[in-house]
Amino acid sequence: MFIRNNWYIAAWADELVQAPLPRTILGEALVLYRDKSGAVGALEDRCCHRGTPLRFGEVVDGGLQCGYHGLVFDCAGSCVSIPGQAKIPAKARVRSYPLVEKDGFVWIWMGDAGEADASAILDYPFHNDRAKWPHKHTVYHIDAGYKLMIDNLMDMTHLAYVHKSTIGGSNAKIHVEAQMKVTPKETGLHYLRWMLACEPPPTYRKAVPQLQQVDRWQEFEFIAPSSIVQWSGALNVGMGAQQNRDQPGGFSLRLFHGLTPETENSCHYFWSTCNGYRQDEPEATEQLFNEIAAAFSEDKAIVQAQQAMLDATGEDRLVDIVSDSARIHMRRTLHRLQDQERAIGAEASDHATDHR
Amino acid sequence: MFIRNNWYIAAWADELVQAPLPRTILGEALVLYRDKSGAVGALEDRCCHRGTPLRFGEVVDGGLQCGYHGLVFDCAGSCVSIPGQAKIPAKARVRSYPLVEKDGFVWIWMGDAGEADASAILDYPFHNDRAKWPHKHTVYHIDAGYKLMIDNLMDMTHLAYVHKSTIGGSNAKIHVEAQMKVTPKETGLHYLRWMLACEPPPTYRKAVPQLQQVDRWQEFEFIAPSSIVQWSGALNVGMGAQQNRDQPGGFSLRLFHGLTPETENSCHYFWSTCNGYRQDEPEATEQLFNEIAAAFSEDKAIVQAQQAMLDATGEDRLVDIVSDSARIHMRRTLHRLQDQERAIGAEASDHATDHR
Amino acid sequence: MFIRNNWYIAAWADELVQAPLPRTILGEALVLYRDKSGAVGALEDRCCHRGTPLRFGEVVDGGLQCGYHGLVFDCAGSCVSIPGQAKIPAKARVRSYPLVEKDGFVWIWMGDAGEADASAILDYPFHNDRAKWPHKHTVYHIDAGYKLMIDNLMDMTHLAYVHKSTIGGSNAKIHVEAQMKVTPKETGLHYLRWMLACEPPPTYRKAVPQLQQVDRWQEFEFIAPSSIVQWSGALNVGMGAQQNRDQPGGFSLRLFHGLTPETENSCHYFWSTCNGYRQDEPEATEQLFNEIAAAFSEDKAIVQAQQAMLDATGEDRLVDIVSDSARIHMRRTLHRLQDQERAIGAEASDHATDHR
Repeated sequence: MFIRNNWYIAAWADELVQAPLPRTILGEALVLYRDKSGAVGALEDRCCHRGTPLRFGEVVDGGLQCGYHGLVFDCAGSCVSIPGQAKIPAKARVRSYPLVEKDGFVWIWMGDAGEADASAILDYPFHNDRAKWPHKHTVYHIDAGYKLMIDNLMDMTHLAYVHKSTIGGSNAKIHVEAQMKVTPKETGLHYLRWMLACEPPPTYRKAVPQLQQVDRWQEFEFIAPSSIVQWSGALNVGMGAQQNRDQPGGFSLRLFHGLTPETENSCHYFWSTCNGYRQDEPEATEQLFNEIAAAFSEDKAIVQAQQAMLDATGEDRLVDIVSDSARIHMRRTLHRLQDQERAIGAEASDHATDHR
Repeated sequence: MFIRNNWYIAAWADELVQAPLPRTILGEALVLYRDKSGAVGALEDRCCHRGTPLRFGEVVDGGLQCGYHGLVFDCAGSCVSIPGQAKIPAKARVRSYPLVEKDGFVWIWMGDAGEADASAILDYPFHNDRAKWPHKHTVYHIDAGYKLMIDNLMDMTHLAYVHKSTIGGSNAKIHVEAQMKVTPKETGLHYLRWMLACEPPPTYRKAVPQLQQVDRWQEFEFIAPSSIVQWSGALNVGMGAQQNRDQPGGFSLRLFHGLTPETENSCHYFWSTCNGYRQDEPEATEQLFNEIAAAFSEDKAIVQAQQAMLDATGEDRLVDIVSDSARIHMRRTLHRLQDQERAIGAEASDHATDHR
Repeated sequence: MFIRNNWYIAAWADELVQAPLPRTILGEALVLYRDKSGAVGALEDRCCHRGTPLRFGEVVDGGLQCGYHGLVFDCAGSCVSIPGQAKIPAKARVRSYPLVEKDGFVWIWMGDAGEADASAILDYPFHNDRAKWPHKHTVYHIDAGYKLMIDNLMDMTHLAYVHKSTIGGSNAKIHVEAQMKVTPKETGLHYLRWMLACEPPPTYRKAVPQLQQVDRWQEFEFIAPSSIVQWSGALNVGMGAQQNRDQPGGFSLRLFHGLTPETENSCHYFWSTCNGYRQDEPEATEQLFNEIAAAFSEDKAIVQAQQAMLDATGEDRLVDIVSDSARIHMRRTLHRLQDQERAIGAEASDHATDHR
């Protein structure tokens, strides 16, 4: 069951050009595009004439034109032109979806359009601060449900096993024994981890060669249903990291993780890296992105295999362990949202019985 | 539901050589071959011994030999040899299907063999008239039901969108505003379209360089359940095309389209091109075939995507438009044939209850 | 339905190194490995923490470590370490399976572990006799049920059709008219075939150039549920092959065939070749293996196609022939074992009702 009445990332803003982009979100096949005025549109990817996917079409004056028989639709889903026909029937329309372009993202609302409130969208100002936080982004297709990907980000002990050669480092002990503080929040949860006086992992050292023994932190905020904002870094021992993390001379990165369900068992993983060091060197931005890309490919492989195994065997006989605390809280938050949607659905269904 | 009591194209005659050719038709896995006497055979692709596909076999004296343990079957499906065994049990046989070789096609009857009447097969003499209509042919595998492919051929306005750079040309207006006359017939329907005083599309101009402003026609006959005979062409304005299309100096082609269901959602598209110009130049025949092949690949891509979308979303909420007139008549003809088969099936079922 | 209470080959002993090897057997996803002490282990390929396949893990001191969050399991399936956690819950375990390493094979017991009796495993001493029977082995993945592969080995007439150019030879008559003697046994069946005074097939002649007209034999023993031990060879006419096959100067090979069900419709085909000639020439061992590998690829192709056809059309309307005698006896043996398991299952189910 999807949580529909929430904002999800549909695309990176720079993915939307005039060429139509097909993407399935919450089980619905959509086509995303930017019209000639620069506005972004999200339509059902199915022409109302013969069911042809609109992704075969092209952007023309007035909207998106079907590539089969030429019908044109505007961003609201209304058919505005049928070749060879003056009168356009009222039922000639396709479903459209509310979109908001903000901080480099295009957010989409898949639920009841009347409930879409743009002010509820989280802020991520770092994408707009190129001087302090130069960044690079992409999207991965994951053959696993979005919850398993969020699970992955709620338990950092996996760095010791999955990412030994990149962002983890080979000393499992420091990850497993990190100080971990989880704080539930109205919108999800926050956690902060400290690994004091340890060796920096390979990725950190490549980025900032002057690192020696470091105090290292991982700070995560999960904003339900599927955004994770991360700030990780390290300062050399003695620089007072625990008092002030926001100082130059160390390693510091911000990662944004947005998991948008494609189907029940697959998702789109939108992520960006911001490097808080060597900001004037484009190759530092590039190098960090490449290291993280390699690490996330490792996550993708293992989580996809996990999904396949759970598909085959179900979720019985699983045992929670101590390091699952943040994950368990995150899952509770999602269950609460699902229950709310069910309640709304039941109410809507009652209304339907009354009035239709 | 398939319409079984009709002739379909099983293969091009020149596809059938002594090597067995596997092909699924109306949901049944067949093996087609030519025996040593030159006769063509269509058998169930499943040996009656252990179920091995006969496509692994080879043509030997007496028929088609299974490639596993050597049983031989004749064109009627009777086993005529079992290695190491003198007596052949009566039940050692596979199903066979009536075939007729005509005009370069091999036609097959998939229904009640007692109803197979070769005189009902359409004539296509152009394949035998190499002097006036040199030709070339092939077969495309289409991951879409045969009805969607016939739909495609019943609405020529798609040329303006799907085939801009080949047989359509970039001026949508002339296709959409063509004069269109549809004539229902006992066997299906006929339509004739005229586009007067227009630019010839790229394919026409490449074929016949002397074309200028032309009067252009498209004449189609749909013969149920799945043959379409097409004659299209253009003569320079002033040559009196509307009075007499059959004159030299212009562009003229004949296309044959045969759509044979493979499964409910896939088909074999047998098509040929005949060039009615530059008949002495094999490169003209080749060039026309290549242009049409490229255009039909465009159709294949869009119709396959349409089928996938309809599979996922059903056929609800579709809106007919003015240019659908021929398509709608064609669909009615097919529904009538399906209803007839259902009635016969019900009757046969009654008889079975009485006599078996 | 699988026959569970029997030994099957899980792997070649030399496949099991410290890197975990995933393999599905009798429908269960397993991971096989060799621990640091050299012992072999077979565990359910699913960590009890989050369901991640253990194949992503690595062998560490104490056992196999999950590659996601670092839990360690010993060969008995008990979790012996959870990172960051002192107490290990009793239910933190995965299923393990009895294994026996013998004659180059690793045998596995997929049924009731209390019934596993290592003394019931067949002997294959030839793998240990490098001087007289140098050998080479591999495993093929077959997209067909194990019974169809055993069928293949119970009817040697297929050599005339499937393996003309390798181990069969082009003279079908000698295979079809071979003397064939089938002897039922408690554990399965034995058969011996003689083809007297015939041409040796290409594989034999390549191996032993001095062969002329030969007396040729094929001796098979089927040991239920899925092992076949084969000794085939040829001696020149006049050497008295029928009195004494075990003499130098001819062609002689031993093949071991072990078919382990993967799923109902796929299996692992473990096979080895031993050459009983030119034992001092490694290239003779290599050449024989390569010839047999090519022949078995031919079997794989035809049996996979047979399985696909039977999946689509069922097993009705099949006709037994004379050369099916050994195959029919083999199938009866398997049905008898299946019936026994059903009876045991029913009994166990009664007990469960009583005592649980």
